[in-house]
Amino acid sequence: MRSPDPEDSDSRRVDPGPTPPAGIDDALTALRQIVGETNVLTDPDAMAGFLTDWTGRYRGAADAVVRPRTTDEVSRVVAECARSGVRICVQGGNTGLVGGSVPPARDGSTNALIVLSTVRMTDIGDVDTVGRCVGAQAGATVGAIDDRAGRSGLAFGIDLASRASATAGGVVSTNAGGTRMIRRGNARSQILGIEAVLADGSVLRRWTSLVKDNVGYDLPSLLAGSEGTLAVITRVLFTLVAPPAVATVAVAAVERVENAVELLGAASSAGLTVEAAELMTEAGVALVADHGHRRPTTAPGPFYVLVELSGTGDIESATTELLGATDGVIDAVLEPAPARALWAGREGHTEAIARSSSTPVVKLDISVPIRALPEAFAELSRVGVDDRFPCRPILFGHIGDGNIHVNLLDVPPEHATEVTESVFGIVTANGGSISAEHGIGRAKVAWTHLGRDATDLATMRTIKAALDPRGLLNPGVLFG
Amino acid sequence: MRSPDPEDSDSRRVDPGPTPPAGIDDALTALRQIVGETNVLTDPDAMAGFLTDWTGRYRGAADAVVRPRTTDEVSRVVAECARSGVRICVQGGNTGLVGGSVPPARDGSTNALIVLSTVRMTDIGDVDTVGRCVGAQAGATVGAIDDRAGRSGLAFGIDLASRASATAGGVVSTNAGGTRMIRRGNARSQILGIEAVLADGSVLRRWTSLVKDNVGYDLPSLLAGSEGTLAVITRVLFTLVAPPAVATVAVAAVERVENAVELLGAASSAGLTVEAAELMTEAGVALVADHGHRRPTTAPGPFYVLVELSGTGDIESATTELLGATDGVIDAVLEPAPARALWAGREGHTEAIARSSSTPVVKLDISVPIRALPEAFAELSRVGVDDRFPCRPILFGHIGDGNIHVNLLDVPPEHATEVTESVFGIVTANGGSISAEHGIGRAKVAWTHLGRDATDLATMRTIKAALDPRGLLNPGVLFG
Repeated sequence: MRSPDPEDSDSRRVDPGPTPPAGIDDALTALRQIVGETNVLTDPDAMAGFLTDWTGRYRGAADAVVRPRTTDEVSRVVAECARSGVRICVQGGNTGLVGGSVPPARDGSTNALIVLSTVRMTDIGDVDTVGRCVGAQAGATVGAIDDRAGRSGLAFGIDLASRASATAGGVVSTNAGGTRMIRRGNARSQILGIEAVLADGSVLRRWTSLVKDNVGYDLPSLLAGSEGTLAVITRVLFTLVAPPAVATVAVAAVERVENAVELLGAASSAGLTVEAAELMTEAGVALVADHGHRRPTTAPGPFYVLVELSGTGDIESATTELLGATDGVIDAVLEPAPARALWAGREGHTEAIARSSSTPVVKLDISVPIRALPEAFAELSRVGVDDRFPCRPILFGHIGDGNIHVNLLDVPPEHATEVTESVFGIVTANGGSISAEHGIGRAKVAWTHLGRDATDLATMRTIKAALDPRGLLNPGVLFG
Repeated sequence: MRSPDPEDSDSRRVDPGPTPPAGIDDALTALRQIVGETNVLTDPDAMAGFLTDWTGRYRGAADAVVRPRTTDEVSRVVAECARSGVRICVQGGNTGLVGGSVPPARDGSTNALIVLSTVRMTDIGDVDTVGRCVGAQAGATVGAIDDRAGRSGLAFGIDLASRASATAGGVVSTNAGGTRMIRRGNARSQILGIEAVLADGSVLRRWTSLVKDNVGYDLPSLLAGSEGTLAVITRVLFTLVAPPAVATVAVAAVERVENAVELLGAASSAGLTVEAAELMTEAGVALVADHGHRRPTTAPGPFYVLVELSGTGDIESATTELLGATDGVIDAVLEPAPARALWAGREGHTEAIARSSSTPVVKLDISVPIRALPEAFAELSRVGVDDRFPCRPILFGHIGDGNIHVNLLDVPPEHATEVTESVFGIVTANGGSISAEHGIGRAKVAWTHLGRDATDLATMRTIKAALDPRGLLNPGVLFG
């Protein structure tokens, strides 16, 4: 499936053909010596899965896929690439939504390009139950890390729908958010240590489980969210969390978005801990109900808020009291966590949406300041309604973070750019971000000026040029 | 007072005299046009307070003290300095403990040097009660920001003893920790937006109150903790927090450091929120009692842990139950927060220590992994005991962060270096940091190799050179 999505600029370039750039043969010989014959793939069929992202929207070309096993192998691979001028596309679970995990199409560059896949780097260390942390190789999945933590009574603070495939390296390099972010913070804030290979092959390593360590620049924070453009992350030391002893999940049908925002504020003022907070609309809930999920509340409302709350004492009573004191609550339902049926109604959105659009869904991931959320939500709900380019918007998101996933169904493919820009126009007018948690990748490179001014972009380029002067790491990602 | 502390290398350099470097006159004329005559100080008496840190241990020299009022003025000041090659020492509240806030002694450089003081940049914006944030100019104090937040029923998440003087720019540029860090995170994690002037005078500005904004590198996180070496922070948009509705402060005398660590783990497993956690020793408590504070518990113990806990329901009963279930609790006392008398026993340490040493106290601020805390604590308690260089160690700190403030009393001045290195030896052997929350400044430059390897330090220097190629910002800080 090729999407006509205008974000997909790379995949529309004409591939000049499979002829590899000169000089790659020597490099491949060296790379085979480092990682072993079987871990340098050059057969097109074997490479195919590494060259297309999971949505099928982004496709690229590479001279080889290289699968190192250790940090030392990554270091030697990158050093060889630096020596021979080979560009590197770093790939984790390949679950990204902005085309950052696959290489660009062959673009006439005289430099060869490899995909460096972390697929074999799946080691997870022993859990430190006192320091509450665990080290994982870049290719370990979110689900595997959480499982390992769970065996020690702890949990991984990052959770997202792609947990079975998304990797440690991927969530850190994209600074992933997810459903637990309101409580635990983004991926960047959950890193205690990091190991990464710089563009010259040298290994940067901070690997002490120190909460406080003010010795110079926070390089782990710089690498987090840098989307593989500054270094290849090889291992991460993650902080782990104590899951709440008891938690309640409530879904309330509410009259206005403001009611949901107020509910969250009241919850934390009452001493309750907000573990998660999701906003849905009647359009989304109805669609999900059409696909076999039960409606959360008996009475419908224009909006629905799902909150998971924890604390000490009788959380269920406290939650009931809270809902009773919140304006605009039409109907509400409570279940003890994990309340999978209530969560399924929220998590079912993605699939229901994908099945309900006559054209590829235009999926945008934006955020706005909490203050602007009600107005932005209202404006975004009108995109495509009585518009030049009619389409059907379905919004949902992580309300506590001001993060809205904008799904535009039935967009005429030829108008995807206009519709995208109309969403970004609303977002920027409301002081928001064109990328809340998915990153820039290749998809949004054309729009970074909407989120960062010229000085800011120039500063990023200065740092990129200083750490990767030849531009070998993830070419085309973040920067055009 | 001049300390013989060996960390104080700059102040021991011989000042070659007050002769200003050639060419400064033109620059000063330009600077006066930017900030006004009265805000360019060159009179030695007027400058004195800006050239010595509050401990009196660090003294430097400058050709002028320049006090801009706005970001625009800072931008023009820095641009003029860049034009004329004048170096800049950035100063906030001048409460730092590692000599980073005062200029170096005159060092024979042909470049002039000014102190850029943010003392006039004290504006604090309106509190956004929905987005829970407030913008403050760099010179606004921690206390003033907290007061402003308090008027809206919110609180500033950073608190430290120097709250009346420490500034927004200072706490961010040093990535301050403090007593609320276990709950709220370090200064870096409380920044929503930042405005800073780069070395060429251009203004970097990210000023949206977005929790999620994944558009490229996290430059605010890079500037936080960079100690003024990459840019001059002019404004910060801080996240604010909802203070707990109800909290209990308990101090328990315990047999072992492990007991205190276990108490914290049990508290969070029980769903209680740890707002603060401090460790003290009998030596410290006895010293504080000698200076007029009451002992916290009736029965003494070798160690004391102060915890402030919040949650929902009956926190006092929950805390009592928790203490009853913790091993090694000898005696304990509870009071509802703020429990100022219990806190005073902890906060009284600094003054009691300063008054009890026959020589200048060697104060070191280190951290170790939580797992290593008991052993490191024991080893650090033995420094100077039956040693070649006898002295009296008193330790206290933020136990939840693994952060120990090491105070060495009665150190023979000529042995301060040896004693310091003996502490750092214990710290590094335990995988710890030579600077937990105070930073490197000038004091610890000689020891950064203990905390960062060669690749790491080289990477930091690469970033410094890229963003401040002429080394005009805070020369001598962080890098030798």
